[in-house]
Amino acid sequence: MTDRYASFVQSAAGRALVKRLGLPDPPRLRRHHPGDPLLTGPALLGAAVGGRLAEPVTAILTAAGVELRDTGTAAPQDRFGALVYDATGITDSTQLRQLYDFFHPQARALLPSGRVIVLGTPPSECPAPREATAQRALEGLVRSIGKEFGRGTTAQLVQVTGDANDTSLESALRFLLSGRSAYVSGQVIRVGVGAASAPADWDRPLDGQVVLVTGAARGIGAALARVLARDGAQVVALDVPAAGDALAAVANDIGGTAVQLDLTAPDAPTRLADHLASRHGRVDVVVHNAGITRDKTLGRMDADRWDQVIDVNLSSQERINDVLLERELIPAGGRIIGVSSIAGIAGNRGQTNYATSKAGVIGLVDSLAPALRDRNISVNAVAPGFIETRMTARIPLVVREAGRRMNSLAQGGLPEDVAETIGWLAWPASGAVSGNVVRVCGQSLLGA
Amino acid sequence: MTDRYASFVQSAAGRALVKRLGLPDPPRLRRHHPGDPLLTGPALLGAAVGGRLAEPVTAILTAAGVELRDTGTAAPQDRFGALVYDATGITDSTQLRQLYDFFHPQARALLPSGRVIVLGTPPSECPAPREATAQRALEGLVRSIGKEFGRGTTAQLVQVTGDANDTSLESALRFLLSGRSAYVSGQVIRVGVGAASAPADWDRPLDGQVVLVTGAARGIGAALARVLARDGAQVVALDVPAAGDALAAVANDIGGTAVQLDLTAPDAPTRLADHLASRHGRVDVVVHNAGITRDKTLGRMDADRWDQVIDVNLSSQERINDVLLERELIPAGGRIIGVSSIAGIAGNRGQTNYATSKAGVIGLVDSLAPALRDRNISVNAVAPGFIETRMTARIPLVVREAGRRMNSLAQGGLPEDVAETIGWLAWPASGAVSGNVVRVCGQSLLGA
Repeated sequence: MTDRYASFVQSAAGRALVKRLGLPDPPRLRRHHPGDPLLTGPALLGAAVGGRLAEPVTAILTAAGVELRDTGTAAPQDRFGALVYDATGITDSTQLRQLYDFFHPQARALLPSGRVIVLGTPPSECPAPREATAQRALEGLVRSIGKEFGRGTTAQLVQVTGDANDTSLESALRFLLSGRSAYVSGQVIRVGVGAASAPADWDRPLDGQVVLVTGAARGIGAALARVLARDGAQVVALDVPAAGDALAAVANDIGGTAVQLDLTAPDAPTRLADHLASRHGRVDVVVHNAGITRDKTLGRMDADRWDQVIDVNLSSQERINDVLLERELIPAGGRIIGVSSIAGIAGNRGQTNYATSKAGVIGLVDSLAPALRDRNISVNAVAPGFIETRMTARIPLVVREAGRRMNSLAQGGLPEDVAETIGWLAWPASGAVSGNVVRVCGQSLLGA
Repeated sequence: MTDRYASFVQSAAGRALVKRLGLPDPPRLRRHHPGDPLLTGPALLGAAVGGRLAEPVTAILTAAGVELRDTGTAAPQDRFGALVYDATGITDSTQLRQLYDFFHPQARALLPSGRVIVLGTPPSECPAPREATAQRALEGLVRSIGKEFGRGTTAQLVQVTGDANDTSLESALRFLLSGRSAYVSGQVIRVGVGAASAPADWDRPLDGQVVLVTGAARGIGAALARVLARDGAQVVALDVPAAGDALAAVANDIGGTAVQLDLTAPDAPTRLADHLASRHGRVDVVVHNAGITRDKTLGRMDADRWDQVIDVNLSSQERINDVLLERELIPAGGRIIGVSSIAGIAGNRGQTNYATSKAGVIGLVDSLAPALRDRNISVNAVAPGFIETRMTARIPLVVREAGRRMNSLAQGGLPEDVAETIGWLAWPASGAVSGNVVRVCGQSLLGA
């Protein structure tokens, strides 16, 4: 569960050797601790002519205590915590040159674990093909910057609709600038319309929220329970009875409650709904984190391996959603959050069952998000890449090393990185973020 | 421009050595030659309960001379040229088991360069979230099969709308089953509504079509000119004046005409339109193949490198489209076909300019396709992966080898593979295929 190579590289002796031999050089990533400032240095703001977001972004960042600079006042030797560019003014490919003009001189100006954020308009909302084309082009730039800049830099494209909710833009910026998004890079995140409420304290963005976490006994689920509790949530930690001891330890640790339940049992949705109704009267956030693998190539896979994986990772989650929604236990402002996977995006050898289930989770987000818009319930998912867990620790060394290094950050992510991203999607302030599948993969090379 | 390793592996001496050492084993791919049958063996058809495509698929394949089998009559030792499964009947994740039941016993039944085709419904057209979820899940299965089956197998998901045009379904099946799609795998292809007309002779699917190919002097463009001419098109081959000799050689070779023109010149669109109007009165198919690279990391890139790449690969193409459309030189039934790139999907280090331009090509497809639906003009693009050209021959050996092998077919593609895919999109029979970006990458691991 530890990346010994990265620890070595980050030691004094290791640094010298790695530089001399030209080995992969995974940087130590800046991660979030309560009370941390959003950035380790000032943010440089830029905007294309005609952009519409300079004003809200300036207001948001100033309120968040970020020191702001613009290209007029920045000196060549200045170093920044973030480069933030409002590209919403770009309506034609010939205007893309403004992005070059902003980023070219700053390519080496970012502090370690710096942030690149380009703000654009969703192409589907652009009135003219020329504008849609130029806005879609931004994705190629951002993904290339993510692969170029190095030293823990992450780069994202945030697509903001014309009538987007300012609180949700703030929520996205606070997440993406902070150490919470340490292992999220090369992503396109859409911020749209939907009710969102800012927290009284941005260090406790989940204050008072009742959050259900399935598969909470270990790995990503346990990390998630801890992150959610740290951020103010009342956590209902659920796992199978066989994991009861580990589950109780997690629940005790965070002052949450534990529920032992096999989610694939026919009566599980009803029992779960009854429990939530009687104990909390509602569940604000449902995180379907429980998942299993049963790897075999399709020719060698028995039917049980297929059925179990589809049922745990997909079908049982659909049954639970349906019952919780039907009984109106997820109130307006609620969240459904799934866990997909790079395998669900790209497919994977030996994982036909797993990849099918995880591609289905993407389908669930795509279809349920618009269906629940009227009820003001958002639906999103994360798609982890290589994360350091007991599951990945069992992968043979050579394959594991390839998986760890084949991303822009040259290292695996931690369960906490996935947890922080799910946590952000759960914030009441993120209400206008719906229908997104956010990869937590360090911008893995793998994809489709 | 040759993959010496693959040639070696495919020799008798090479085969023995490669097996002993466990080296990558790139199979010799089945490629199209006029008069070839669609498949080298029978096709096994299957369908989920309630599917709607068994009838048209059976009719199409029978007419195309394919021998059909079903699971009731197939023997365990039977070997197939293709496995074709109609999954449109699947409306819930619990029904995905039917795919396992069909594919599990056949995982080793495909002949070399076999074909897996799963037919589904576009999730956005499914009335219920459960159906949309299950239909989206198919993508994970197909992409995993593409990575598992090996021996030159390709696997695709063809999403067919409820009111799809049968001729375009036939066009897609004929392309995907044939050797024309040798290097296309792991793709999702949508077949929708739109006028499409079957050719008199499926071996000359472009008979009488006037096709403009830019960048036709060499590489993919020259291969494309040859494939289009072979399939019956009148080719207008265009390139810059500096490539005049090579261009003339291509044009003479195929009985086409040559146009020397710098497409970035301000008067280029008008001059091109004038030429097409006076010589042909129209242009049925426009293939924007011309493209350049000017690689540098963003910090080291001068503004010219940025401007040239954006202008050649994107902006000049937009200007030409606009003039040709405004003067109505692209008739109903016409085609606009762009060339994107894996770099436009995933981004690439040292290619911020190129990736931006190629991401823009995807935006052009996404936005122009719906805008031109009323005029019955389709807009699509291909996105090549690692293709053996003069451009890739200049890549340093180790990087080149990685690029070549990191895909499900363990080899680079040929310019002909890209050409065949563009050719298929150009067929009058493919009229209901619009808004697609088809990767020609052997299911490269790279993506986003």
